[in-house]
Amino acid sequence: MLSDKMLAERTAYMGTSAIREILKVLSRPGVVSLAGGMPAPEAFPMEHLEGLFQRVLKKHGTNAMQYGTTEGFRPLQEALVDYLGGLGVEAKPEEINTTTGSQGVLDSLGKILITPGDALAVEAPTYLGALQAFNPYGPKYVQMETDGDGLIPESMEEVVKKHHPKLVYLIPTFQNPTGRTIPLERRKEIARIAMENDTLVVEDDPYGQLRYHGDFVTPIKAFAPDHVIYCGSFSKVFAPGLRVGFYLAPGIVQDWLVLAKQGVDLHTSSLSQALAAEFLVEGFMEKHVPRITGLYAPKMKAMLTAMREFFPDSFTWTEPEGGMFIWAEGPAGLDTTALYGRAIENKVAFVPGRYFYAEARTGLATMRLNFTMADEETLRLAIERLAATIREAL
Amino acid sequence: MLSDKMLAERTAYMGTSAIREILKVLSRPGVVSLAGGMPAPEAFPMEHLEGLFQRVLKKHGTNAMQYGTTEGFRPLQEALVDYLGGLGVEAKPEEINTTTGSQGVLDSLGKILITPGDALAVEAPTYLGALQAFNPYGPKYVQMETDGDGLIPESMEEVVKKHHPKLVYLIPTFQNPTGRTIPLERRKEIARIAMENDTLVVEDDPYGQLRYHGDFVTPIKAFAPDHVIYCGSFSKVFAPGLRVGFYLAPGIVQDWLVLAKQGVDLHTSSLSQALAAEFLVEGFMEKHVPRITGLYAPKMKAMLTAMREFFPDSFTWTEPEGGMFIWAEGPAGLDTTALYGRAIENKVAFVPGRYFYAEARTGLATMRLNFTMADEETLRLAIERLAATIREAL
Repeated sequence: MLSDKMLAERTAYMGTSAIREILKVLSRPGVVSLAGGMPAPEAFPMEHLEGLFQRVLKKHGTNAMQYGTTEGFRPLQEALVDYLGGLGVEAKPEEINTTTGSQGVLDSLGKILITPGDALAVEAPTYLGALQAFNPYGPKYVQMETDGDGLIPESMEEVVKKHHPKLVYLIPTFQNPTGRTIPLERRKEIARIAMENDTLVVEDDPYGQLRYHGDFVTPIKAFAPDHVIYCGSFSKVFAPGLRVGFYLAPGIVQDWLVLAKQGVDLHTSSLSQALAAEFLVEGFMEKHVPRITGLYAPKMKAMLTAMREFFPDSFTWTEPEGGMFIWAEGPAGLDTTALYGRAIENKVAFVPGRYFYAEARTGLATMRLNFTMADEETLRLAIERLAATIREAL
Repeated sequence: MLSDKMLAERTAYMGTSAIREILKVLSRPGVVSLAGGMPAPEAFPMEHLEGLFQRVLKKHGTNAMQYGTTEGFRPLQEALVDYLGGLGVEAKPEEINTTTGSQGVLDSLGKILITPGDALAVEAPTYLGALQAFNPYGPKYVQMETDGDGLIPESMEEVVKKHHPKLVYLIPTFQNPTGRTIPLERRKEIARIAMENDTLVVEDDPYGQLRYHGDFVTPIKAFAPDHVIYCGSFSKVFAPGLRVGFYLAPGIVQDWLVLAKQGVDLHTSSLSQALAAEFLVEGFMEKHVPRITGLYAPKMKAMLTAMREFFPDSFTWTEPEGGMFIWAEGPAGLDTTALYGRAIENKVAFVPGRYFYAEARTGLATMRLNFTMADEETLRLAIERLAATIREAL
């Protein structure tokens, strides 16, 4: 009989996914889920898909069906130059690489940079999927402190000087899970720290376009181009099912990232990349994004309004300017993981916040709430149910 | 300044891709390439794509654009049950997982099974892309001997008993690079050896449908279901640009493979999977594959005929029953890598065979020739040029 003994040592870092188990109960009938991280299906440009597909066939023909280079589908690399320019980030087409979702580059970064035991600095809390991408490579996570304005630069500087992390992983805009955005002055500080200490920073930016109010903030990449890997995605502005992301990395890691990706999937779907290219070239990014933000802004407002009405005074929560999530924190002593089972009985689901911390037993009183999937009335109902569940537990 | 010092130790196993450098000169004007491994663009069902896309939108709607499960797009998992049944391989939908090309599962296998230094057995020669997928995990490759009928079971048994490899990687049908097919009796022997020694075997089968003559041979999976990971792909029968592959793994590794993939790309393109599902459900596999084999069979024949006419008597080569490649071997002392530059000057390209061996300095006199991309007249011309180049060198 084959047995677990044949597994690689690194599977010890991978663990089984506790959160996968937790989220399985979501599908019970009547449960309103605030646990997801998916765009609303109404946010997809379904009525334009046939037109886009026809354009792809007409313009790219068999190239949209053929093997492509690992680096990326050239028309998409070219279209991304203008897009990135609009964010204040300068790039030549050949400096931009595409990935299978923005998840793809995280795996490659772990592969080329992390020897087991190497330090990797993350915000506390951070994106769970990034931890899952990095875990197999055995990093020693070091948490950096955050406040209402996201990462505290002094904490990053301390961590960088003390632990010399191979990588500092950040989601500076509408962070997953908190919804927080790092302000401009802090971004410049982060850039300075990265340059002074020769530290590589990942700026993961899948949510940047989903701004409901407030002003655009220039990416950190613009202030430290040789030290920042900027990662973008079409998942939240076009469709996640296409699995198209992209990144702009300093030359010193770019070739290695391409080589790592070649072994993993040869290249990202040519058809998906061609559709993303036409989405940009045909101006859908400008035309379509306002429809998405117009859909999500009232949802976020409805959730925040309901939280003010129903949540106990002992709770605090973020009031983001965009993105997909609100982050709530209860009083010390509350364990939202214990709360989860009762919430499901009351027909509402959320993600206990502890899963977003690299260090165990942290953030026990926190939770992540998603507002993009349900309608406003349902969101209000869900928050009312969740608040009732919390009051029972307190 | 950032430097190479930050790279993970495992990058030492990854190397830079010498073959990438070699293949760059392919794009010189006038060079006929026999070096590729791509399907002919005429083999894509371009005239059916719009219809398939419309069906996908009508039947799957926003599900074809939304995030999906790592395990796979359920309608594709279901459609694959019948397909695999037709090959003599029994499976339930939930036992079949999809991947981003069949490359995807190779990376995951390396990740969950190989601790640096673990033995991994491969045919000599084997698929270069598999080596690239496994390399970052630091396996110690052990080569198994082959002859005109592919892998020699006695060699596998010796290697398995002596080195206890974590994995035996095979392409039993129309192998890349040799085009050889392992006959039924040997497959049963391989299954017996795997079961008796509790060895995990990867049966990579991207070319199986491309049979031009001779009889179908049942996959090894059918004879040792608990010890074989069967991997298939839509790249050679539909379109490689979609990046859709699939595998059927014993339960003991299946959950780990899914967990590994989740960190890498969350899931394979939903749109690509939905297109592949409709391709199967609508019977395109049966209807379209004969068109592909009808296109490739005369190409293979043209190449073999030209080789008989022009190649020196000191060469031998395979005469496959299907697939995309012919494997040629020159007299001892010939170095096809040295020949490559002169071949490019004579406007023909091939892949020096040494790149398909896990052990260095092996197969120096061999070369892989692809016949799917050029037309018959051009193939004849290319073989004539290549033979002239060889005669200059001998």
